[in-house]
Amino acid sequence: MANPPPQHNSYLPLYTPPQVAHHEWRTASNSAAYLLPSLSALATSTPNLRLLDVGCGSGTISTSLAALIPSGSVTATDISPEILARAKDLAAKAGVANISFQEADIYALPFEDGTFDVVHASMVLSHVDDPVQAYREMLRVTRPNGGLVANRESDLRMWSYYPPLPGLRRAHEVLLATTREGGGNVDAGAKLVAWAMEAGVGKEAIEVSMGTWMYSSVEERRMWGDTMVERCRRGGGREKALEMGIATEADFESMAEAWAEWQAAEDACHGMMHGEILIRK
Amino acid sequence: MANPPPQHNSYLPLYTPPQVAHHEWRTASNSAAYLLPSLSALATSTPNLRLLDVGCGSGTISTSLAALIPSGSVTATDISPEILARAKDLAAKAGVANISFQEADIYALPFEDGTFDVVHASMVLSHVDDPVQAYREMLRVTRPNGGLVANRESDLRMWSYYPPLPGLRRAHEVLLATTREGGGNVDAGAKLVAWAMEAGVGKEAIEVSMGTWMYSSVEERRMWGDTMVERCRRGGGREKALEMGIATEADFESMAEAWAEWQAAEDACHGMMHGEILIRK
Repeated sequence: MANPPPQHNSYLPLYTPPQVAHHEWRTASNSAAYLLPSLSALATSTPNLRLLDVGCGSGTISTSLAALIPSGSVTATDISPEILARAKDLAAKAGVANISFQEADIYALPFEDGTFDVVHASMVLSHVDDPVQAYREMLRVTRPNGGLVANRESDLRMWSYYPPLPGLRRAHEVLLATTREGGGNVDAGAKLVAWAMEAGVGKEAIEVSMGTWMYSSVEERRMWGDTMVERCRRGGGREKALEMGIATEADFESMAEAWAEWQAAEDACHGMMHGEILIRK
Repeated sequence: MANPPPQHNSYLPLYTPPQVAHHEWRTASNSAAYLLPSLSALATSTPNLRLLDVGCGSGTISTSLAALIPSGSVTATDISPEILARAKDLAAKAGVANISFQEADIYALPFEDGTFDVVHASMVLSHVDDPVQAYREMLRVTRPNGGLVANRESDLRMWSYYPPLPGLRRAHEVLLATTREGGGNVDAGAKLVAWAMEAGVGKEAIEVSMGTWMYSSVEERRMWGDTMVERCRRGGGREKALEMGIATEADFESMAEAWAEWQAAEDACHGMMHGEILIRK
């Protein structure tokens, strides 16, 4: 049976301002720490290191990675030209010059085999319907004999938060249902080894770990609470959930109120858990 | 209304060989990494640093902390004399001499106010019925003006594993139900800030993060799979669940088989998530 061509089907409608606010909080240190020791070692042995960041979104991780390898260079790709324009602006504002941006499909990267020393993706594979094919393509453009593929994806089921407000529980249920219905992988973070092995990687070439985001300080609660309140009031995720009948407008208003209550609570926290994989080619 | 005296009611029956196997895999680096930068700074300014490890169990974390502060010393306490005997043996075998062991109740630590520079506990507060009182007592024996309380507790609800075997799902449900019924806190990892603030700590004195354990390599799967198979076949957790009618002997046999299947699967992984708090006194 022929498979239908793979799709990137759960994410594109979500690029709206509230999501971008949280995306732009992301940096190499809070989102790619598992890669940094290997990157540093590789940058020492390969001064002109070439790093590809696939599905870069607004590019704050890509730009901070570029800043860490001043004698190397970063190519950052995304399927959305709108978000790439934003990413370019942010890189220019950050004064980072060793980075270029390019529109690309993760299933058909416009690069020769073995072009890059490091190929990185953060929170991307969970949003495509054929993550194994995406790994194959990322591996193809990675150089043999020492090249590295690095990937971090959330296990969206893992939300550890306080206080246990019913509106936050509902928000989590709605996120999971909307992601599942949209063809995304809520449990991507737990599947990275399985996907890599299905893509032909031997277990001995894999290092796997889990990392977290944790929001509790005043600044973190401001950033995350604002993001979540806004997601409940507008944006693609809300529209999809309404269309699919997963939640009502009244539900979303209750969830927004719960996030505002969470944001105001001094003893509040919200932890999330992400799988992390390093594949040595 | 007078409160009943606080109890340590969910943990004591669990000290059986299978649990100890996993306990003894624990070290400062896999279980107290969040503390190490602060500990290192404090050890530089306080050469004779005194560290108290409360609820040390078989003491492998305590002993590895002692090895990190060779000019300081560690006092490690537990309420169980049996496990302290084991901890002493292990410390002696590891050749670590700057550590002593002492039986103690976390609610009534046998030390003067302000005795220690650092007071640490790992996976302890989730097993007592008054964690706020435990924090008060840990804070009491911590020195003012620069002393540090460090604590890591699991959010037991957060199990990210692959493959998604029904027997593992059942094992997780049984763990949660048995812990809840036994008076433990399954969500301790999410409550550390709330507990600390209830114990009188200001938010500005708190740093909170989340850490993980992740088992996927052959060695990790051997250690964790053996531990979990054994827990299903004997030990206090099993006995409690059987007594409480949470699971049957046949359930436990299915769960043991699922853990063996998990252990044998090359692409298997199991991640867990823990809250971590540093309180500066």
